[in-house]
Amino acid sequence: MSIQNIDQILDLVQYALEQEDLDQAIRYLSTLKSPDQADIFEELEEDEQAVLLQHLSPEDSADILEDMEDEEAAELADALPLEKLARIIDEMEPDEAADLLGDVSPEKARYLLTRLEDAAEIRPLLIHPDDSAGGLMTSEFLVLLEDMTCAEALTTIRYWNPEQDDISYFFVADEERHLRGVVSLLRLVSCSPTVRVGSIMDRDVISIRAGADQEEAARLMSRYDLLALPVVNERNVIVGVITVDDVLDVLEEEATEDIQRLGGAEPLDQPYLLTSAWELFRKRIGWLMLLFVTGSLTGTVLRIFEEDLSRVVSLSIFIPLLIGTGGNAGSQTTNTIIRALAVGDIDLKDAFLTLWHEVRVGVLIGVGMGIFGYIRAIMWHVPPEVAFTVAIAIFAVVVWATSMGSILPVVATALKIDPTVVSGPVMSTLVDATGLLIYFTIARMVVLRGM
Amino acid sequence: MSIQNIDQILDLVQYALEQEDLDQAIRYLSTLKSPDQADIFEELEEDEQAVLLQHLSPEDSADILEDMEDEEAAELADALPLEKLARIIDEMEPDEAADLLGDVSPEKARYLLTRLEDAAEIRPLLIHPDDSAGGLMTSEFLVLLEDMTCAEALTTIRYWNPEQDDISYFFVADEERHLRGVVSLLRLVSCSPTVRVGSIMDRDVISIRAGADQEEAARLMSRYDLLALPVVNERNVIVGVITVDDVLDVLEEEATEDIQRLGGAEPLDQPYLLTSAWELFRKRIGWLMLLFVTGSLTGTVLRIFEEDLSRVVSLSIFIPLLIGTGGNAGSQTTNTIIRALAVGDIDLKDAFLTLWHEVRVGVLIGVGMGIFGYIRAIMWHVPPEVAFTVAIAIFAVVVWATSMGSILPVVATALKIDPTVVSGPVMSTLVDATGLLIYFTIARMVVLRGM
Repeated sequence: MSIQNIDQILDLVQYALEQEDLDQAIRYLSTLKSPDQADIFEELEEDEQAVLLQHLSPEDSADILEDMEDEEAAELADALPLEKLARIIDEMEPDEAADLLGDVSPEKARYLLTRLEDAAEIRPLLIHPDDSAGGLMTSEFLVLLEDMTCAEALTTIRYWNPEQDDISYFFVADEERHLRGVVSLLRLVSCSPTVRVGSIMDRDVISIRAGADQEEAARLMSRYDLLALPVVNERNVIVGVITVDDVLDVLEEEATEDIQRLGGAEPLDQPYLLTSAWELFRKRIGWLMLLFVTGSLTGTVLRIFEEDLSRVVSLSIFIPLLIGTGGNAGSQTTNTIIRALAVGDIDLKDAFLTLWHEVRVGVLIGVGMGIFGYIRAIMWHVPPEVAFTVAIAIFAVVVWATSMGSILPVVATALKIDPTVVSGPVMSTLVDATGLLIYFTIARMVVLRGM
Repeated sequence: MSIQNIDQILDLVQYALEQEDLDQAIRYLSTLKSPDQADIFEELEEDEQAVLLQHLSPEDSADILEDMEDEEAAELADALPLEKLARIIDEMEPDEAADLLGDVSPEKARYLLTRLEDAAEIRPLLIHPDDSAGGLMTSEFLVLLEDMTCAEALTTIRYWNPEQDDISYFFVADEERHLRGVVSLLRLVSCSPTVRVGSIMDRDVISIRAGADQEEAARLMSRYDLLALPVVNERNVIVGVITVDDVLDVLEEEATEDIQRLGGAEPLDQPYLLTSAWELFRKRIGWLMLLFVTGSLTGTVLRIFEEDLSRVVSLSIFIPLLIGTGGNAGSQTTNTIIRALAVGDIDLKDAFLTLWHEVRVGVLIGVGMGIFGYIRAIMWHVPPEVAFTVAIAIFAVVVWATSMGSILPVVATALKIDPTVVSGPVMSTLVDATGLLIYFTIARMVVLRGM
């Protein structure tokens, strides 16, 4: 379904709503899948959303609420009559229902829980933080027993009627629901009826604790190509299952947050266009001010060397170029290292290896850029000793920036700080003042010696 | 499986290999899952790899080769005897086998194809580019027919014996293999034996053309929570299936490339520690030199205003701070916009909306930072008109950088250029020279007027 198509349907739905032809609006909507319907809902006015949702079946409404952004869904839920909302929540997958209940007011959530048919499935999900494995799991899962025969297992499965039917494997437990193994539905279908599940299951099953970080769940599922991951408590009892579709969202969300932080801004809580200008301002101004204060050190350094500058004015021409090159070299390193940490290509024990790697890269780049800078300076007809100073300073600043860019994210990780704080803007600001210090120190040794 | 554990096993395997106790080395290895075995293989010497692989079963060897980085796998494949390699490739999933054949020499690939039992499955996969939907798909899939009964379908499924058994749904076609629908295995298991597949399948099935970009496949599967996506040719005939595990890798790879480009470097082809210092140098030096040349414009601007500078020396103190702030504000915007484009939160038609959004954010940030800068300048005891110049210049540079940071990624996308070229380093370099121009123009109007 192309985006153009969604826009056309949006226009048609809005036109139908203006004509107060609800049935026609719903007919247009029903040509789409629920993620696209959710997109259209997000473009409508709140009263239009509420009216439409009351005329859709609870099943369709549930699908749309599941696919909307969490905060938009909560706002819409607030606008619905409580009884209607309860019927819709009953049709949602338990993990999505729990997320929604977590986003409405506590009083409303408590009241809704008394009205829900599926309250028993949803309640245990509410105790886990949103960003933990427990917050990601669903309580809608079927556990097979080791001593069931394949025929018994298939009968159990036939009578199970889940909201989602894209199941590829089942987890196997003992009588006390301790996780024992996993078996694929395909295998169950193919095995002879009297064979025990315990004898065909794979005992080497990967699981995660409910309290673990959701990112760990995502990494495990991605690394081992899992479609479902069982969540266990401290006694290895299965308490839920994480499905791969939730993990896709987590991976995408984490990458988005990393990229926003690497640009030197706080991550947004919502998609870009839903974030107000004021909110964007608040997410950015803090870092900018902090960087400004740190950046003020450049002024301090320049004031120290003010007299040298006035004696050799041509030195000042290279200031932005020199610190710019240092900042750029630092940003390159820091983004590469931070991503390597995030996907697990390197970890803390590789710290020295990484530094050594980057120092060598820094020397190579420093030599290259130093020569390049020397040629550029000569072309500006500055005195040769100034050109030489520029070349040496570029070399030193690049090696310095590259080393810092490789150490700082690792140090941050060791201190349990998100390494993305060492963003490109942070790197260039750090390199600005220190780069100037390096530049003028070399200038004093080369150009200003004896002046 | 924690990383510490893998490192311990690596030590044990290496020790066993030194003692030339191959059986023990293989026993240690066999305690791990194949992605972890692959990690260990990547740490071993090439001759150790080859010896081990020849003693493992073709099935285990195939799993390890599948989980190794493409280039490492190809190197290792090159070191194996051809007959042994052919037996291993026969055990690989067809899409992985095709990738491997694409990475060895063309002569070797042609020879291997004559020796493979599964050549017929692999051959059609070889014609698709690696980064297309066709390059991602597997040819190992089972198509059900509309007029099969559920009992017939299940019998067909029982006799099918795929390498991978984590199947959750099957695609349904007509006699000419035109895609008609999709049905979950759970549904097939639950339906009564005489019911036709065509009557229980979901006709609203999402598919992708073989030539489409792999990123489009990833977005579709992520948006619609699909575990498998059918790939069709121009006549809607099913030619393959993409599974969600391949898509997880694509999404991770694309995010890694974006982050590396946003740091102002060419994306790496391999994990960080496998990339040599020389290769890292080559991936970074190009952009640095280009940025250096662009950055040289700062020198040109400074030379134009050299006389003004020498008259009001205090102006120079603020140069790094001013252009730094502009660069930081630009990086914040550009990272946010590029990610919003990548995940589909905004598209080309939102260009003006985005610009308007960012101009407002820029004005808010500009006012805040302008006031902040004024206070900082006053604290340095510079003349009030210089402080005023700095404040106005910061405001103007921030609004300018924010606007550019929002326009340029969109313009790049419109020109079919990857928007990540507008990285933080590119933004700060662009803002450096233009920011100086803005600064001195304002200085001439405010401070230097009448001097």
